[in-house]
Amino acid sequence: MNELFSDRINNVAPSFIREILKVASNSSMTSFAGGLPHRELFPIAALREATNKVYEDQGADALQYSNTEGFEPLREYIARRYWEKQGLPISMEDILITSGAQQGLDLLGKVLINDGTEVIIEEPAYLGAIQALSLYRARLNTVPISTEGMVISKLVDVLGRCKPKLMYVVPNFQNPSGITYTKDNREAVATALRDSPTFLVEDDPYGELRFVGSRQPSFRHFLPDKTILLGSFSKTVVPAFRLGWIVPPRPLMGKLVIAKQVSDLHTSTFVQRVLCQYLYDNDLDTHVKTIVEFYDRQCKTMLAAIGEYFPKEIFYTNPEGGMFLWVTLLKKQSSMALLEKAIEKNIAFVPGHPFYVNGGGDNTFRLNFSSAGEDAIHGGIALLGKLIRELPA
Amino acid sequence: MNELFSDRINNVAPSFIREILKVASNSSMTSFAGGLPHRELFPIAALREATNKVYEDQGADALQYSNTEGFEPLREYIARRYWEKQGLPISMEDILITSGAQQGLDLLGKVLINDGTEVIIEEPAYLGAIQALSLYRARLNTVPISTEGMVISKLVDVLGRCKPKLMYVVPNFQNPSGITYTKDNREAVATALRDSPTFLVEDDPYGELRFVGSRQPSFRHFLPDKTILLGSFSKTVVPAFRLGWIVPPRPLMGKLVIAKQVSDLHTSTFVQRVLCQYLYDNDLDTHVKTIVEFYDRQCKTMLAAIGEYFPKEIFYTNPEGGMFLWVTLLKKQSSMALLEKAIEKNIAFVPGHPFYVNGGGDNTFRLNFSSAGEDAIHGGIALLGKLIRELPA
Repeated sequence: MNELFSDRINNVAPSFIREILKVASNSSMTSFAGGLPHRELFPIAALREATNKVYEDQGADALQYSNTEGFEPLREYIARRYWEKQGLPISMEDILITSGAQQGLDLLGKVLINDGTEVIIEEPAYLGAIQALSLYRARLNTVPISTEGMVISKLVDVLGRCKPKLMYVVPNFQNPSGITYTKDNREAVATALRDSPTFLVEDDPYGELRFVGSRQPSFRHFLPDKTILLGSFSKTVVPAFRLGWIVPPRPLMGKLVIAKQVSDLHTSTFVQRVLCQYLYDNDLDTHVKTIVEFYDRQCKTMLAAIGEYFPKEIFYTNPEGGMFLWVTLLKKQSSMALLEKAIEKNIAFVPGHPFYVNGGGDNTFRLNFSSAGEDAIHGGIALLGKLIRELPA
Repeated sequence: MNELFSDRINNVAPSFIREILKVASNSSMTSFAGGLPHRELFPIAALREATNKVYEDQGADALQYSNTEGFEPLREYIARRYWEKQGLPISMEDILITSGAQQGLDLLGKVLINDGTEVIIEEPAYLGAIQALSLYRARLNTVPISTEGMVISKLVDVLGRCKPKLMYVVPNFQNPSGITYTKDNREAVATALRDSPTFLVEDDPYGELRFVGSRQPSFRHFLPDKTILLGSFSKTVVPAFRLGWIVPPRPLMGKLVIAKQVSDLHTSTFVQRVLCQYLYDNDLDTHVKTIVEFYDRQCKTMLAAIGEYFPKEIFYTNPEGGMFLWVTLLKKQSSMALLEKAIEKNIAFVPGHPFYVNGGGDNTFRLNFSSAGEDAIHGGIALLGKLIRELPA
């Protein structure tokens, strides 16, 4: 049967998360599994107002075919925000609107990767990146991460072994681990990469969702000609619009635009214009502050419950922002065995194993704290703690 | 420099049409170049009403992440319409929503094509298909088309030479030629393919836009297990939503869903729900009838002007529907030379050459009749006729 399909698609494992989400979509389930923004945080009224304004002021212009690069005022907004929030000199022309940041990965795969092209990813790594890079049959080299960021000695090892074309990282509130690269770690990563022909992909869907401290510098500051930025409105405004963007170094833009055109001509002009109207009529900072306060509270609730109910020798990360934290059980304990018991009690999470492309992580799992309510978080973690204590050590 | 890029993207020629459209976007230009629906035909008020209803009735559900396959009521509507309009037994589960039909091609490339996989396309062929199939490095075998459909003897030749995995056709009001496969031709194509391991991709963005006669049977009637249907709302309702779909034979669906997930997770739930609300609250047939009457009038205006102003020995197609017709100049006349003169006079069209993957078509060009106004059509064709008479014969 597999002869029916391309080598490319046979190289992609079906998403285990997707299978868990199917189970977790049962409404009696307390889900720490997905990465869903909390539904109460969507700015419905303001989006509706923006939408009506677009119909009224732009009419047919908002409904016609459009250019591949994206709606200029939206790209201008994004460029300006890079400057205001991060001091990054990026102009409208540097930005290509994509259908979510996931599509940015697909376009990079199309444009940069041949069969066997060497690529570096984190261990554990974002599953959507593993899938996209696997589809284009990159050779995935993993570098472990710690609570500080990349393990530099391991990165240097890999760079000594091969010349990677691409390195993919989520340096802020990483998915799945919740860790953030320190400034020192970023500088060390940049130093290691400086003489390598490697593009560094900085995927930053959660960067604005910081609970404590202040933003660490983008790799674009350290490696301006080599850093490819991926961004998204899915976590800050609305996921269903599927609006993200990519900021490549200039020599890559032309081919990325061709790849985008071949993929789907352009991202919906209509949602681009609605989101743009929303951004010009509302203060995104105020909205982001609401999200941050909400998730910070949920995260604190989860951390407090873990402190109370999990055995003391269980390690977990303490995220500075984002939507996830990461639990490491005792060495011989299995998060898959835990999941089986948990599902019986109507609790879902994602075991760590699928985030490790070369195997491992069997005693780890990811907890999402953005989606469930506070009572459910407290109750769910209490139950999980009980189940962990029942696991063989 | 090309070492920077993948072999895949280096295999895709930039779209010549895109370059012409840039020139044609000048507002003083009479454009017969693009394939834009006429902007006066967008059902703005009804879409606006549908949008407000979605905000009101569905709220956060319409703004959250969603499943990869697409919004079920929309898929049910599409399935029902296949049954009502074409007698095709297709169920909701057979339909995967894509970001325009173009993305259907990208997903097929991902799932079915290896480097060098043999594929058949029409000559001349839709440029977006040439690009998508080239990206995945298919080997493109061309079969010429006539005003009846595929030239069967040539199709049989190609099938004798190789075992194509895929064949891509636009049997109704083909892009670029405007021709429609006759029923006899469809039967002959199906007979030729019956014992071949070839999937037939039937791309049908214009099928509903028929001016005369009645719909010819889909290949799905003749080759139900081998035909892959691509569809789109871009020409019947609104292009900017980027909503299309793919109906594969069942064994292909699982991998296509994985490919879709890797590409962009899912198509915007929001626009899916808005379009679905529009379709349930309005009669699409009534709206399509308005479009058909409009384009039929525009087409007749263009044909009358061609009859009046073009030299008698120039051949052109007489489309039964859709948005395009196709002109063949005398053997040694160059449509590229004509374009240069035409642009100077503020008239744009697309020369035929880019639609021929193996070269040729230098004396052909495509005219779009959906987008310009009737006066502009008359005046533009008159001028083109004058320029053609000035070409060396």
